[in-house]
Amino acid sequence: MAKRILVLNGPNLNMLGTREPGIYGAHTLGDVQALCETTGQELGLSIDFRQSNHEGELVTWIQEAQSSADAILINPAAYSHTSVAIHDALKAVGLPVAEVHLSNIHQREPFRHHSYVSAVAVGVICGFGIAGYRLSLMALAEKLS
Amino acid sequence: MAKRILVLNGPNLNMLGTREPGIYGAHTLGDVQALCETTGQELGLSIDFRQSNHEGELVTWIQEAQSSADAILINPAAYSHTSVAIHDALKAVGLPVAEVHLSNIHQREPFRHHSYVSAVAVGVICGFGIAGYRLSLMALAEKLS
Amino acid sequence: MAKRILVLNGPNLNMLGTREPGIYGAHTLGDVQALCETTGQELGLSIDFRQSNHEGELVTWIQEAQSSADAILINPAAYSHTSVAIHDALKAVGLPVAEVHLSNIHQREPFRHHSYVSAVAVGVICGFGIAGYRLSLMALAEKLS
Amino acid sequence: MAKRILVLNGPNLNMLGTREPGIYGAHTLGDVQALCETTGQELGLSIDFRQSNHEGELVTWIQEAQSSADAILINPAAYSHTSVAIHDALKAVGLPVAEVHLSNIHQREPFRHHSYVSAVAVGVICGFGIAGYRLSLMALAEKLS
Amino acid sequence: MAKRILVLNGPNLNMLGTREPGIYGAHTLGDVQALCETTGQELGLSIDFRQSNHEGELVTWIQEAQSSADAILINPAAYSHTSVAIHDALKAVGLPVAEVHLSNIHQREPFRHHSYVSAVAVGVICGFGIAGYRLSLMALAEKLS
Amino acid sequence: MAKRILVLNGPNLNMLGTREPGIYGAHTLGDVQALCETTGQELGLSIDFRQSNHEGELVTWIQEAQSSADAILINPAAYSHTSVAIHDALKAVGLPVAEVHLSNIHQREPFRHHSYVSAVAVGVICGFGIAGYRLSLMALAEKLS
Amino acid sequence: MAKRILVLNGPNLNMLGTREPGIYGAHTLGDVQALCETTGQELGLSIDFRQSNHEGELVTWIQEAQSSADAILINPAAYSHTSVAIHDALKAVGLPVAEVHLSNIHQREPFRHHSYVSAVAVGVICGFGIAGYRLSLMALAEKLS
Amino acid sequence: MAKRILVLNGPNLNMLGTREPGIYGAHTLGDVQALCETTGQELGLSIDFRQSNHEGELVTWIQEAQSSADAILINPAAYSHTSVAIHDALKAVGLPVAEVHLSNIHQREPFRHHSYVSAVAVGVICGFGIAGYRLSLMALAEKLS
Amino acid sequence: MAKRILVLNGPNLNMLGTREPGIYGAHTLGDVQALCETTGQELGLSIDFRQSNHEGELVTWIQEAQSSADAILINPAAYSHTSVAIHDALKAVGLPVAEVHLSNIHQREPFRHHSYVSAVAVGVICGFGIAGYRLSLMALAEKLS
Amino acid sequence: MAKRILVLNGPNLNMLGTREPGIYGAHTLGDVQALCETTGQELGLSIDFRQSNHEGELVTWIQEAQSSADAILINPAAYSHTSVAIHDALKAVGLPVAEVHLSNIHQREPFRHHSYVSAVAVGVICGFGIAGYRLSLMALAEKLS
Amino acid sequence: MAKRILVLNGPNLNMLGTREPGIYGAHTLGDVQALCETTGQELGLSIDFRQSNHEGELVTWIQEAQSSADAILINPAAYSHTSVAIHDALKAVGLPVAEVHLSNIHQREPFRHHSYVSAVAVGVICGFGIAGYRLSLMALAEKLS
Amino acid sequence: MAKRILVLNGPNLNMLGTREPGIYGAHTLGDVQALCETTGQELGLSIDFRQSNHEGELVTWIQEAQSSADAILINPAAYSHTSVAIHDALKAVGLPVAEVHLSNIHQREPFRHHSYVSAVAVGVICGFGIAGYRLSLMALAEKLS
Repeated sequence: MAKRILVLNGPNLNMLGTREPGIYGAHTLGDVQALCETTGQELGLSIDFRQSNHEGELVTWIQEAQSSADAILINPAAYSHTSVAIHDALKAVGLPVAEVHLSNIHQREPFRHHSYVSAVAVGVICGFGIAGYRLSLMALAEKLS
Repeated sequence: MAKRILVLNGPNLNMLGTREPGIYGAHTLGDVQALCETTGQELGLSIDFRQSNHEGELVTWIQEAQSSADAILINPAAYSHTSVAIHDALKAVGLPVAEVHLSNIHQREPFRHHSYVSAVAVGVICGFGIAGYRLSLMALAEKLS
Repeated sequence: MAKRILVLNGPNLNMLGTREPGIYGAHTLGDVQALCETTGQELGLSIDFRQSNHEGELVTWIQEAQSSADAILINPAAYSHTSVAIHDALKAVGLPVAEVHLSNIHQREPFRHHSYVSAVAVGVICGFGIAGYRLSLMALAEKLS
Repeated sequence: MAKRILVLNGPNLNMLGTREPGIYGAHTLGDVQALCETTGQELGLSIDFRQSNHEGELVTWIQEAQSSADAILINPAAYSHTSVAIHDALKAVGLPVAEVHLSNIHQREPFRHHSYVSAVAVGVICGFGIAGYRLSLMALAEKLS
Repeated sequence: MAKRILVLNGPNLNMLGTREPGIYGAHTLGDVQALCETTGQELGLSIDFRQSNHEGELVTWIQEAQSSADAILINPAAYSHTSVAIHDALKAVGLPVAEVHLSNIHQREPFRHHSYVSAVAVGVICGFGIAGYRLSLMALAEKLS
Repeated sequence: MAKRILVLNGPNLNMLGTREPGIYGAHTLGDVQALCETTGQELGLSIDFRQSNHEGELVTWIQEAQSSADAILINPAAYSHTSVAIHDALKAVGLPVAEVHLSNIHQREPFRHHSYVSAVAVGVICGFGIAGYRLSLMALAEKLS
Repeated sequence: MAKRILVLNGPNLNMLGTREPGIYGAHTLGDVQALCETTGQELGLSIDFRQSNHEGELVTWIQEAQSSADAILINPAAYSHTSVAIHDALKAVGLPVAEVHLSNIHQREPFRHHSYVSAVAVGVICGFGIAGYRLSLMALAEKLS
Repeated sequence: MAKRILVLNGPNLNMLGTREPGIYGAHTLGDVQALCETTGQELGLSIDFRQSNHEGELVTWIQEAQSSADAILINPAAYSHTSVAIHDALKAVGLPVAEVHLSNIHQREPFRHHSYVSAVAVGVICGFGIAGYRLSLMALAEKLS
Repeated sequence: MAKRILVLNGPNLNMLGTREPGIYGAHTLGDVQALCETTGQELGLSIDFRQSNHEGELVTWIQEAQSSADAILINPAAYSHTSVAIHDALKAVGLPVAEVHLSNIHQREPFRHHSYVSAVAVGVICGFGIAGYRLSLMALAEKLS
Repeated sequence: MAKRILVLNGPNLNMLGTREPGIYGAHTLGDVQALCETTGQELGLSIDFRQSNHEGELVTWIQEAQSSADAILINPAAYSHTSVAIHDALKAVGLPVAEVHLSNIHQREPFRHHSYVSAVAVGVICGFGIAGYRLSLMALAEKLS
Repeated sequence: MAKRILVLNGPNLNMLGTREPGIYGAHTLGDVQALCETTGQELGLSIDFRQSNHEGELVTWIQEAQSSADAILINPAAYSHTSVAIHDALKAVGLPVAEVHLSNIHQREPFRHHSYVSAVAVGVICGFGIAGYRLSLMALAEKLS
Repeated sequence: MAKRILVLNGPNLNMLGTREPGIYGAHTLGDVQALCETTGQELGLSIDFRQSNHEGELVTWIQEAQSSADAILINPAAYSHTSVAIHDALKAVGLPVAEVHLSNIHQREPFRHHSYVSAVAVGVICGFGIAGYRLSLMALAEKLS
């Protein structure tokens, strides 16, 4: 049976393509979803792709993954840097987590250099644009196999 | 007439029992609610027991307590360390507040050592597991009498 | 045609008038709305006035402003100090932003001295009470003309 | 047989009642002892209640508890913030420790926000005045049962 | 009788118009004075407009305002960040103070993020260019009425 | 013609397989080289795979890549955290750089949380073990195409 | 009746005259006592002069002063920099306190720049050698008159 | 021949008596001068008493003291905390320096805890109000004899 | 004549053997004393071996060593990290000092990384268990010869 | 036509030769002026040599250089470390600036390690005594040619 | 069979005897080698004594020790404070490590107070000059027996 | 006889001319060598010009200068900020050292603001491009004469 991956996108990622294309690129979140689904088909993964601007909703979705997913791919966006609640939720469900960032957060403002999610993720990929989602899915597929 | 206590539980406390039992113990949030209600009956307190993963919802419930509660018992969980909004809400309503943590936050990661809620609480109890709720209710009962 | 201003109010501002009047004054949020609407009429601005306790809801409203407003006036309240998500949303929509605070945040607790919003605002006004809204609208009107 | 609790009080607690009643309340240390003994009787605990201004004497008493007590309740007062020796003694004897503070130390000077004892205590109660001793005894009784 | 406002301008503001127009705009200090005087006439305020490169001279002018002004509008420029003496002078005279900055100091070098004047001002306006003087005068007029 | 990738491995990576397998896994550097070469063949990349314990030698190899490679994949190991010289060399040659770490450096000692290389890399992958090399090559291949 | 001054000397002051004369001078503690007694006679003060190496003993003496002295002159020596207990004792008794140091502590190691006693003293005199005791007694005499 | 003491007063001390009497007392600078002159007569010192709001003028007066004074008594006021120039001037002339503060600077804002002058003064007296000038003159007289 | 060595042991070392044997080993303080005395006989040193939990008593013993010992071997235990008084006493007596720690303090909590004693010791030995005492005596013997 | 260099000397440099010759050497400011004028003649530069103890005067002179000089050579002395106003003035006039220090500021007190002027200077020369002025003039001459 | 000890000396130790004898003593590295070999013979240890100025060479030698030595004695000199690579190499080979410093590094510049090697050494000896090598060999001999 | 100057160039300076010309200019290291040799001829200095990417090789060259050079001119490049070993080598040989940087390091990343070499150099020149080498040679020539 296909492994199930919950792909979570944090606040403002619904603006992708229109938001600061110099930093985030011209792809839309629809493009990212298509890339994830295509990659999922290649790798035999089923993809549940979501976005929310609400920290609490992301927390709830992570909790629900305990019974409905085998791994989590998360781009926590702004909540990377401020959310202990998402950190705690990921730690509570205990699934393998891949963290992805479109931009190289180490080259941006100092407050973006630290991510609460990294402490509970298997690994982190940043700076490779939307290709980072594809690479993260490959990493999770290998982890789950 | 019975004093009314609003018992608030922050993010991920709905996972209690399944989440890191080594740290948080094997009791569920239902057990905590039962303990609070039993203790309330002993002490002549009416208990309004709630949990939310949403910072904004916790803020709203605290605001509403101004007219519907005599004191607040809060386990802010992850929001202890990041929420100025909950701090402000508690300060705005001006009710006596008891802060409780299941684990001894001073023995965990440095980012858990500071709580924004402590600055607006009458007192704080941490590390005694779910018994901390019972002790906090007793403290509030004495405070209100 | 009238320029459209989205006026956003962050958490606990719905408590205005009852919350710590020594700091925030005796005016209610209704008074603030009336002041904004009166000022808007004088300046030929249409005002869309909102308040939310939810960080995610504020983020969403800011995103929607991209097509429905010409500028944003925001009192981020507690989220000033903790929300990278609101910072990102304001940066993403790219509209002129005026930031207002009722109290002089530089005279309060150290954690209120820094605002993530200031880095993406045209200007900041603090300490002049509800008059700050009126002054901010004037500043935005001049900016937009 | 009754569980034996060593109740230790640090420097200046013998001044209780006369010392800054706005912060510490009007109760004397005799009142605290009476409260502990009454509570002990209710809970079936034998109480050994002591106070010292000497860090070294507190260290020695803690060491002696290894053979003469089942748990320690300590209000380390000023030594909370400066004594590695008391921290080490408590760690060396390995008994369950409850830490209590009359005032809410998180609302006072920054140098009172950190306690070396918290790192070796089961739990901490602060801010509930002398009731904190009673609550701590209850927590220890539950811990020992 | 007209309220008297002392409008003080700190070091290098006499260079306005020629100094880094990308940051400070193309207006000269003469333009600012004209704006203040026009605004003063509208609001029934008499304006005493001055500029100095000397910290000590600014201190002396502030002291003299105790008997010759009803409020102070100050753009302390570089001295915002380094002058305890101006802070002390403003505190000593006890008049209402509005602080204004042409640029948004929170978007510039870190050493410009803190102003010693903010701690003794009623309010602060920054980032709105020379319009900030006009807005500040309105705020002071309202404060004095 | 095949794009040429210089794959650089920093100090102690020659110990791979014997060094702390709990952190770095059981694969040897030979395994990593084989993986890179296989992946290179799949992607049409020619691989130049090297390891050195000498900061200066790594600097020299990076400099030489200016004429002999199209991109650099580097696992700087310990030098990530201490070498400004490698940072400068990578910046000087101006080729696309992918940075890889076997372990999740954000979960280890604080001195491993910062990498001087990240500031000059396109992207960073950490925590996915030797698969990180394969993912990095894919990222570089996409970047170069 | 003569005002009573408790003159307290902290650890190692009994070594005066032999201890680092380059820093502390050639006078012995006996000389200091004689100077205090002579000065006391001139000023109509009775002097109770003591020295201890024990923090706890100093705390106890301060507590006892509540009924046996009108003011305290203290050279806390090493305990200036480490003793919250002495700070608390001085605050608890509420008598006027003058703090004296033989050397200018601001010119020595950084850990000597901060004194916990200064926060509870009326004033501080340092750097004038044993003359500082005489000056402090004069200051206290004026304070008490 | 009488020893000559230059008594320097920093910015805002000309406001003494009217400025924050709760902190600085009700005495005027004229009172301070009279006290210094009376004390000088008692001790056989000639007093040159000055005040300036200008850092540069204080620097110049200190330099001139090299040939016209035997010691300097300085209350640097706000410049204590910000003036390296006054520190350098005092070091350059090499006369004995006594530093005095009316208030206990260690009980005020953190930025008042450090004085650049202390590093070049023989001793420091703070918190004893205008009596501190008298005590400082006595200390200097003893130093010079 | 035999050189006399004062061997001082700080707080909780009387618990040796029972206290955290994983860190401090299974030897008792009696074993340490026997080792020191045996080593002393080999090296022609007379050993005066003491332990105290009291900072003040350690200070007094150090002071007395000025006339009764030729060198000091000290394991300050917890007081390493908090006692300026012991630092001052050691500096005052001016004898050669060897500092020893059973455990490697650099691998423990950050607050154990700094020792006030190291600044006044000839040398420091840590991490070699009770053998450190023997090595320290050899070092002192060589120093004294 | 000769290029015009404004040579500015900050506070206390008029004391050169008498002030701490161990640090600053035996040359007087007259010697420095002579050296600058001789060097200027060699290099075809006209020299305008000035010194002030007043920050404001230095600011004014820098402003005036906009029309009367082609470059500025400045030894800001104590104001290097504290003056944002001089930084702003130099930035405002936009002329090439060479910064010189007689001593090697990196070997002195930490507060001398940072200079606000360095951020707006072409280059900095320190530690070479008065020869640094000659070298700086040569650097400016080359820059201007 | 004799236990084999690799004795490693870091950069500049080949200068011993000529380099700052006030700090490092008059012995040459040849003297240290002779002392180690003599001590080795006494203790039945075979000594492999080396020095390098190259961080990479030290790393390689440590790696090779995995098969050719039973323990490592290292004086990392300057690399103590900057080399994560040596730290990693020592951790990777897993042999017992003794760290030695000729001088007492805690009495020197702050950047010498921390050693990356201490975190992976059994124990550390500093300040006893070349005798520290002899003491370290004794400690290792005891550890290996 | 001609004074001999060892001119050392640190890592990546062999890339000069191709490396970030916006920061480092268009000159090559060959141009720098030619400039040094020409200047040497003018000043009667013999020049030994070298470059290395290896910290250890630079250390060795500095050590060898003790017998083969009269002074050292060093551009430590990246090793300025990380090499205690070079600092120690320069201190050990005790020759006069001039430190030069092509760019103004105070205007670049914060990690470039501190140089370990400055603490052991006579003086430092930065920001004047390759002319800095010429100026440094002049300074050394004057120092040696």
